[in-house]
Amino acid sequence: MPETTLNMIARAQPADASDSRPRETIAILGGTGDLGTGLAWRWSRAGYPVVIGSRTLAKAETALAGLRARHPGTTAGAATNADAARAADIAVLTVPAAHQIATLASVQTNLAGKIVIDVTVPLVPPKVGTVQLPAEGSAGKRAQEFLGDGVMVVSAFQNVAAHLLQQEVGIECDVLVAGNKKAARDKVIELVQAAGMTGWHAGPIDNAAAAEALTSVLIQINRRHPISHAGIKLVGQG
Amino acid sequence: MPETTLNMIARAQPADASDSRPRETIAILGGTGDLGTGLAWRWSRAGYPVVIGSRTLAKAETALAGLRARHPGTTAGAATNADAARAADIAVLTVPAAHQIATLASVQTNLAGKIVIDVTVPLVPPKVGTVQLPAEGSAGKRAQEFLGDGVMVVSAFQNVAAHLLQQEVGIECDVLVAGNKKAARDKVIELVQAAGMTGWHAGPIDNAAAAEALTSVLIQINRRHPISHAGIKLVGQG
Repeated sequence: MPETTLNMIARAQPADASDSRPRETIAILGGTGDLGTGLAWRWSRAGYPVVIGSRTLAKAETALAGLRARHPGTTAGAATNADAARAADIAVLTVPAAHQIATLASVQTNLAGKIVIDVTVPLVPPKVGTVQLPAEGSAGKRAQEFLGDGVMVVSAFQNVAAHLLQQEVGIECDVLVAGNKKAARDKVIELVQAAGMTGWHAGPIDNAAAAEALTSVLIQINRRHPISHAGIKLVGQG
Repeated sequence: MPETTLNMIARAQPADASDSRPRETIAILGGTGDLGTGLAWRWSRAGYPVVIGSRTLAKAETALAGLRARHPGTTAGAATNADAARAADIAVLTVPAAHQIATLASVQTNLAGKIVIDVTVPLVPPKVGTVQLPAEGSAGKRAQEFLGDGVMVVSAFQNVAAHLLQQEVGIECDVLVAGNKKAARDKVIELVQAAGMTGWHAGPIDNAAAAEALTSVLIQINRRHPISHAGIKLVGQG
């Protein structure tokens, strides 16, 4: 499929495709892995300006080069986490749980008033199939407590297989979107849709615990059932 | 549909329908509500001997009479929780979270060596839409710690709308089954199937946190999206 067609499909995905206002700039902090670059690619082709951040500019540039090798024509920038956060309207945190707070601390002054999408999954190796939520209740809650009420933390994307984000495939996994402000959740649900998935209002940031815990459950299901890349879909009935 | 036909359908549901060994006796402790009597009805028609337990015999008998009024021909017994637990091969706990440990304590001597299916959802009114897991990590884990390793606690059914269990309908919600012993989870997955749903190996009892937290998320989704009785289905992809 030609890239222009992909872009047209992607651009048609946001809820109000006739909206011609400039889209928000998205910084993906610690965005050098499959998850970060996968989201970068999907949002870029949906028309969002995207910046991949890392601790050093060189690492961010290397990740961007790799992404462009996989998906030629992807438009995105590369920067240090601090510069990326400064440029961003919306920041996305995709680092291992052990680096979550240190990374936030390093860019905190650039996040005031912004939405921070926390994608941290608090797995504790080696028992990644056992739920071991942090003392704060969840990594999302921990981020909100650390950043304070001046930053709108929204938890999302914990249950999506990272390497599927990199592929030209539909993703059979819904996204639970937890955060204290409805308007911030609405914005993130828009970004979930732009990335090709369905997002759901999961309630306050306390409820990040559900999606974070579910990741270990999905790991168990992949191990013990004849199913790959287990995910969840929300269903309803009369 | 005639009751005999229903029974034939239900009896065909367990994994090995040709298995003619006697089925396990199931006691539903605190089983007088929609959840308890709904499970009682579904397992009874699948051919399992079922006893509805309550703190007093009179309450259990009243619940059973109500169930029979809704579903004539249901075969089940009524007993005090202690007598029900004594008679049971498998005990199911369907009480409000605040009564979980007191109820277990009242029947503990009758549970040694048995499977206890914990259906407790640790909602904390009035904020039932906010995840507030207990200090032990989950109600399931709390039950396992209280009863000790001589009892096999398996967590299940937290995400199923209780009144749907009472109705002649398929239920669009999968069941996450968490517990430390695989053989016990296998048995509970068989009972999930006998009740008309699909169960999944969710890992050790620590992972009860996922399904317990998810209940508050489903409450939020019911509030904020045009969907009723939100549930989850597990999906996979290449």
